Amino acid sequence: MTKPLNIGMIGYGFMGRAHSNAYAKVNHFFDLPMRPALKAACARDTAKIKAFADKWGYESTETDWRKLVERKDIDAIDICVPNNLHKEIALACAANKKMILCEKPLAMNGAEGKVMVEAVEKAGVPNMVWYNYRRVPAVTLAKQLIDEGKLGRIFHYRAKFLQDWTINPELPQGGTGLWRLDVGAAGSGVSGDLLAHCIDTALWLNGDMSTVSAMTETFVKERKHNLTGKVEKVGIDDACIFYGRFDNGSLANFESTRYARGHKALYTFEINGEHASICWDLHDLHRLQYFDHRDQGMTRGWRDIHVTDGDHPYMGNWWVPGLQIGYEHSFVHQVADFINGLASGKPAQPTFRDAQRTGLVLDAVLESAKSGKWVNVQKA
Amino acid sequence: MTKPLNIGMIGYGFMGRAHSNAYAKVNHFFDLPMRPALKAACARDTAKIKAFADKWGYESTETDWRKLVERKDIDAIDICVPNNLHKEIALACAANKKMILCEKPLAMNGAEGKVMVEAVEKAGVPNMVWYNYRRVPAVTLAKQLIDEGKLGRIFHYRAKFLQDWTINPELPQGGTGLWRLDVGAAGSGVSGDLLAHCIDTALWLNGDMSTVSAMTETFVKERKHNLTGKVEKVGIDDACIFYGRFDNGSLANFESTRYARGHKALYTFEINGEHASICWDLHDLHRLQYFDHRDQGMTRGWRDIHVTDGDHPYMGNWWVPGLQIGYEHSFVHQVADFINGLASGKPAQPTFRDAQRTGLVLDAVLESAKSGKWVNVQKA
Amino acid sequence: MTKPLNIGMIGYGFMGRAHSNAYAKVNHFFDLPMRPALKAACARDTAKIKAFADKWGYESTETDWRKLVERKDIDAIDICVPNNLHKEIALACAANKKMILCEKPLAMNGAEGKVMVEAVEKAGVPNMVWYNYRRVPAVTLAKQLIDEGKLGRIFHYRAKFLQDWTINPELPQGGTGLWRLDVGAAGSGVSGDLLAHCIDTALWLNGDMSTVSAMTETFVKERKHNLTGKVEKVGIDDACIFYGRFDNGSLANFESTRYARGHKALYTFEINGEHASICWDLHDLHRLQYFDHRDQGMTRGWRDIHVTDGDHPYMGNWWVPGLQIGYEHSFVHQVADFINGLASGKPAQPTFRDAQRTGLVLDAVLESAKSGKWVNVQKA
Amino acid sequence: MTKPLNIGMIGYGFMGRAHSNAYAKVNHFFDLPMRPALKAACARDTAKIKAFADKWGYESTETDWRKLVERKDIDAIDICVPNNLHKEIALACAANKKMILCEKPLAMNGAEGKVMVEAVEKAGVPNMVWYNYRRVPAVTLAKQLIDEGKLGRIFHYRAKFLQDWTINPELPQGGTGLWRLDVGAAGSGVSGDLLAHCIDTALWLNGDMSTVSAMTETFVKERKHNLTGKVEKVGIDDACIFYGRFDNGSLANFESTRYARGHKALYTFEINGEHASICWDLHDLHRLQYFDHRDQGMTRGWRDIHVTDGDHPYMGNWWVPGLQIGYEHSFVHQVADFINGLASGKPAQPTFRDAQRTGLVLDAVLESAKSGKWVNVQKA
Repeated sequence: MTKPLNIGMIGYGFMGRAHSNAYAKVNHFFDLPMRPALKAACARDTAKIKAFADKWGYESTETDWRKLVERKDIDAIDICVPNNLHKEIALACAANKKMILCEKPLAMNGAEGKVMVEAVEKAGVPNMVWYNYRRVPAVTLAKQLIDEGKLGRIFHYRAKFLQDWTINPELPQGGTGLWRLDVGAAGSGVSGDLLAHCIDTALWLNGDMSTVSAMTETFVKERKHNLTGKVEKVGIDDACIFYGRFDNGSLANFESTRYARGHKALYTFEINGEHASICWDLHDLHRLQYFDHRDQGMTRGWRDIHVTDGDHPYMGNWWVPGLQIGYEHSFVHQVADFINGLASGKPAQPTFRDAQRTGLVLDAVLESAKSGKWVNVQKA
Repeated sequence: MTKPLNIGMIGYGFMGRAHSNAYAKVNHFFDLPMRPALKAACARDTAKIKAFADKWGYESTETDWRKLVERKDIDAIDICVPNNLHKEIALACAANKKMILCEKPLAMNGAEGKVMVEAVEKAGVPNMVWYNYRRVPAVTLAKQLIDEGKLGRIFHYRAKFLQDWTINPELPQGGTGLWRLDVGAAGSGVSGDLLAHCIDTALWLNGDMSTVSAMTETFVKERKHNLTGKVEKVGIDDACIFYGRFDNGSLANFESTRYARGHKALYTFEINGEHASICWDLHDLHRLQYFDHRDQGMTRGWRDIHVTDGDHPYMGNWWVPGLQIGYEHSFVHQVADFINGLASGKPAQPTFRDAQRTGLVLDAVLESAKSGKWVNVQKA
Repeated sequence: MTKPLNIGMIGYGFMGRAHSNAYAKVNHFFDLPMRPALKAACARDTAKIKAFADKWGYESTETDWRKLVERKDIDAIDICVPNNLHKEIALACAANKKMILCEKPLAMNGAEGKVMVEAVEKAGVPNMVWYNYRRVPAVTLAKQLIDEGKLGRIFHYRAKFLQDWTINPELPQGGTGLWRLDVGAAGSGVSGDLLAHCIDTALWLNGDMSTVSAMTETFVKERKHNLTGKVEKVGIDDACIFYGRFDNGSLANFESTRYARGHKALYTFEINGEHASICWDLHDLHRLQYFDHRDQGMTRGWRDIHVTDGDHPYMGNWWVPGLQIGYEHSFVHQVADFINGLASGKPAQPTFRDAQRTGLVLDAVLESAKSGKWVNVQKA
Repeated sequence: MTKPLNIGMIGYGFMGRAHSNAYAKVNHFFDLPMRPALKAACARDTAKIKAFADKWGYESTETDWRKLVERKDIDAIDICVPNNLHKEIALACAANKKMILCEKPLAMNGAEGKVMVEAVEKAGVPNMVWYNYRRVPAVTLAKQLIDEGKLGRIFHYRAKFLQDWTINPELPQGGTGLWRLDVGAAGSGVSGDLLAHCIDTALWLNGDMSTVSAMTETFVKERKHNLTGKVEKVGIDDACIFYGRFDNGSLANFESTRYARGHKALYTFEINGEHASICWDLHDLHRLQYFDHRDQGMTRGWRDIHVTDGDHPYMGNWWVPGLQIGYEHSFVHQVADFINGLASGKPAQPTFRDAQRTGLVLDAVLESAKSGKWVNVQKA
C-alpha cells in the first residue's frame, strides 16, 4: 500500500471541491508513491464543514484553522480561503512545518508574497500554488513545443480572460460566493482573479516580464455589500488591460474583464514566434492550435490538435484518443506532480517563489493603472 | 449515511475503469439515496484483478464470475466483458436476482437480446445498458429541445462514428485490448461497437426505425489472430453505411468506419426539423449546435451552445459556467440516474428492453448488408 | 489586342448572370490568348432579354434560339436554360459548328446525354459543362494533393449538398425561378440539381463509381404549379441518399436534400485515405481542411488551409494572401481554362463526355431508388 | 443609358486593380444613376501604365498626374499612390474641382489631413476615402445591429490586424510593392497601414475615442533599401499596441503587427455590449458572430451568421443564400454608395472629414508611443 499524505483542507467552496476531487481521484489514474488521505476539513461554520467532510470523506473537522495547522496527524495544509487570509495561514503552516498547497493568487500583493516565500523557504516546507491551467494537457503541450524550440524567436504573447457574470448591477459584493467582488477580501478584481492565471502561464511559457503599462476600469461604481447590507463603493477593477515587454524582447498584450457578454470563462493565449505560433482557449481546453511555417507551403495551415492521444501530456493516464477530459483534471495532474515532486526532490511548480513572480507583475500592473505611466516589474 | 449499493464488477479493462470511476465519484457530486459500494471485482487473471481491485478500492476479488453472481453481499453486477459473454452472465444474474448494469451492445444479436430481456423482466431485477452518450449534457439537452417540440416535423437524422485506429494492417485481431476486431468475441465490427451508440441515441431522440438498407466492407481481409498466433480471415465489418426510414417519416443516414484518417472517435449526429436543427459531436462534447429558423432573419445563425451553465442538464452538479466536463462524466450521470431510478421506481433508461430495440436495428442492418435488399426492422 | 471569342448566351437567369460576369471579368485577371466578346443574348421575352443585354453589354438580342445558333458572328453558345432544353439546343449548336458551354446537368438523363456527346464529338466542336465547383481554388488544391499521391489508398468518399429553401409547402413549383421544382423542366429534384455537383467532383477526384444503392423521398407531395395555376403532384425528389463503391474500392456515401433547416447551400465532401484526409465545404469555400498522419504525432491535427496564397491554384491572379474570393470566381476560372484549352488543344474539363459519366451515375441512383436494389453504373 | 462618371486613375498597383474592378463591375450588379467610365490611367512609367490601361479598358493614359488632374473630360480622380503623395494630388484635384476618391490613410498625419479636408470642403468637391471594410456585408450588418440598439451600453471594443509577411529580415524596404516598409513613403508602419482600418471601423461603429496609450516596436532594425541599394535604418513601426477610451465610456484594446506567424491578413474586431456582443474577422469575411443574452438561456450561444441572404446588406445584389462573396466586393459596394451619394446629395462615408478622425487617433497613438504617456485625441 502506498504511503498516505495526510491532508488538512481549509475551506469548502468551489476550490475546496475541486481540490478534494483531485485528492480522491488521483491514485485511480496515476501510479504514485503516496496517496492523499483526507484527514480533516476546516471552516468556521460547523454545519457546513461537517456536510462537506461527509460528502468528501474527510475523517474529521475543525472550526479553527489554527488548531488544524497544529495537528500532528496532518502533513499538508490546503488553503482554499479568500486571498486576505493566505498570508497568516501560510506563516502558521510554515511555523508548524506543514507542507502548503495554496490557492492562487499567492497573496494580496507582492509585499505579502515576499514574506510568505521567505517563511516557507526558511522552514523548508514543500509549497505550491494552484495555478492549475499549467496542467491542462494542451497547455503543457504548448510548454513542451516551446522548450523544444519549435517557435524560434518570440515576437508576441497575447492573453485574455473574458467573463460576463457581473454585468448585472444588482449583483451584490462581498460574502460567500461573492468575496471576489469585495476588494477587502480579494485585494483586486479581475487582475488578481483572472489576469493572475494569464500571467502565471505567460511567465512559465515565455519567461519574465520587464515592464508594463496598464489601465483599469470599474464599470459599476457601487454595489450592495452582502456583509454590511449597505450600498458601498466598489473597490475592485472590473476590467484591466495592459501591454508590456518580456525579457526576451517579445511584446505583451493582456486583458481581462467580467463585462464581455457571451464569454463565460474565456481564457485564451496566443504566442507568435518566428517559425511557429500557438493558440489555446479554455472553452475548448482539450485542443491546441498550432501553425508551423516550415510546413510545405501548399498545405500550410493552423493545425487543430485534439490533445487526447496517449503520448500527449498526462493523457496516457486517462481514456483513449478522441475522448476528452475537462477542467477538473488539471487539479488531479497538479496533485500527481506535487506527490512526484515530494518523492523526487524536484518540487512541482509553481512554488511560492514562482508564484511570487506573478504577484510582482500584478503589483506593477496596478501601480501603472494608477499612475498612468510605464512601470518596471520588480525582480523576485 | 446513505445506504450502500453493493457492486460486483466483472472485467477490468477500459470500461471497468470508466464504471469504477463513476461509482467512486458519483456521491461527491450528486445527492443520492444510495452510494455504490465496491464489494468485489472479478476476472480470470488473479494478479490482474487484484491489482485492479487495489487501485480502485474493491474490497475483494473473484476469478470465477459464477461465484461472484452467487454472492449474497452483492446487489448489482456490472458486466464489462466481451459481447459473447453478456448473455450467459446476464441470465445467471437474473437467476440470482441481481440487478444488472451491462456494457453495450446488449448482446451478440437480437435473438440473444430477446432471451436476456425476458429473463430480467421475469426475474424482476433492475437492469440497464451502458449507452453512456445519452448523458453527455449536450445530448441530454438535445433530447429536451426535441421533447419541447422545438424542431417540429423531423425530416432528417444523420449520424456517423468515425475512427482511424485499425488502418494499419499489421494490427492483430483478438485477445486483450483487441477483442473488438475478433468476430467471435464481438459479434460484429463497427456496427455493434460504434453504430450501436448512434442507433441508441437516434431511437431515443427520434423514435423507432422501420426499415433500413445497408452495406458493409472489410478493408483488411486477414490479420494475425493474437489467440491462435495465425493469420486468419477477418470476420468483422470495418465499415458500415446504411440509410432508412424512421416511423415518423424522417430519413436516416448512418455510417461508421475505423478507416477515416484523422478522426479518433468522431461520433456526430444532426437532426433537421421543420423549424430547427441540432448538431453534436463527441470531439467537442460540451457543445451543442442549434439553428432556429424562427430567429429574426438578419441575425439567424447556428448557435454554438457551450453546455456548461447551471441550468443545463447535469451541469449544476459540477463547476461554473465555461468550465467543461469530459467523457467520463457521462458514466457518473448514468450511475446517478440508475440510483435515482431505483429509488423512484422509474427505471433509468436504457433498460435491456430499450437496448434490444437497438439490437434489432443492427440485425436488420447486417441482414441487409448481406442480402443487398431493404430489410424491415423487427418490433421489440 | 487579343482575339475575340464571340459568345451567344441563351438565358438570363441566375446562371446567365454568373457566366456573363465571368466573361466580362476574366481578361482583367488572367492573361489569355482570347477574350470573350458578348455578341448576343437570347430569350423569348423581348423586354427581359433587352434589359439583360443592356446591363451586361451584349451587343444584340434574339428571341429565337435557333436564329442565334445559326448566326455567323457567334463562335460559342452558352446554354443557360432549364435542363429539358439542353439536348435540342446542343444538337443544333453541333449542327452549326458552334462551340458549346452548357449548364449542368448535361441532360435530363443518360440517354439524352449520350446523343449529345456523340453529336459534339462528331461535329468536332469544343464543348464544356459548367460544373464550376472543380475550380474553387480549395477544390482544385484537393485535386492536386490527390494527384500527388498524398492520400494513399482511398477508403471513403462522403459528400452532401444540403439546402433548406423548399421546406415551406406554400412554395409553388414551375415557372421562372422555380423550374427546378418542376420535374418536367428539371428531370429530377435534388439529384440532378445538387448531387450532380457532388458526383462530378467525386468522379474527378476519386475516379469512376461502379455500383450504387439509393433512396429518394418527396416530403411535400403536392404544390401549386405556377404555369397551370393548379395544385399538382410533385414529381421531383426532395431528398436523395445513396451509398456505393468506386472502382478504386472506396466506399461512397452521398446525400442531398432541400429540407435541412439551417443549411443554405452546404455542399461538403470528405475523402479519407490511408495517409491523409481532406474536407471541404461551400459555406467557407476558401478553406481546405487537411489531415496528414505522417505529421509528427504530438502536433498532428487537421490543418485549416486558408487557400489564398499566390501559389495556391488560381490565387496568384487575384489579391494577396488572406483576402478571399467567392463563389463567382469559379466561373471566371472555368472561362480562363476553356480559353486556354482552345489554344492548347487540351480541352478544359469537364467536356460533355466527362459530364456524361455523372449522368450515368445519376441514372443508376434514380433507378436504384425506384427498384430498391443495387444498380451497376453504366460505363460511358 | 446611364450617365457616365468619368474616372481618372492615378496608380496601377494592388489598389489600382481593386478599384478598377469595382468600376468595371458595379453596374452589372447595382442599378445606379451613373456608370463609371474609365477615361484615363496615370503613372510615370509609360509602358506599365499602358499595359494597365489596356488590361482594364482605360481609354487613355497620362504620365504626369498634374495633366490628368487638369483634363476637362475627367470628373473624378482616384488616388492610388503612396501616402506621401496624397496631399499634393488632392489639393490639385480640389483646385481643379475634381471629385476625389483617395486611398487610405487619408494623409501622412493629421496636419496634412487637416489641409486636405479644408481644401475639398472649400472647393465643394465630393470626396471619399477607401476604407473599404465598412462595406463588407457582415460589417455593415454589425453597424445596423448597433444602430438598432441591440447591444445596449458598450463596455469593450477590441480590434487586431495581424499579418506575418515581414518576418524575414532579408525582405528589403522601399520601392514598388514594398513602399509600405519605407517610412518616407508610408509615414508609419502597421499603424497607418493596418490600424487605420481598425480605427476607421471602430469610430464608425462605436463613436469617437477620447484618449489613448500606445507602444510600438520595430523588430527588424535595418533592411536593405530598394531605392538606394543600401542597408538603412527601418523607420516604420512593425507592431503597435494601444488601449484607450471611447467617448461612450467603453475601453479600447487595439493591436497590429506584421510578425504574427500564421496570420495573413487577420483583421478582427469584437464589441461587448450590455445585452449582446459581435465578432468579425477578415479571414471569413462573409460571417458575423453574434451573441444575444436575451435569447432563452438553455439555447443561448454565439450565432454564426452566414451573411449571404437577400436581406443582408448588399447581398440582394449578388447570388443566392449560401454563396459567398469576397474581398473585392467591398470596393464595388463603395463605388455604388459613392454614386448613390452623388445622386442623393447625402455623401457616401467616409468623407475626408470622417477619415481625418482616424488620422487624429493615429497621431495620438504615435505620440503616446514616443512619450510613454496617455495622449488625448484631438477633435476633428
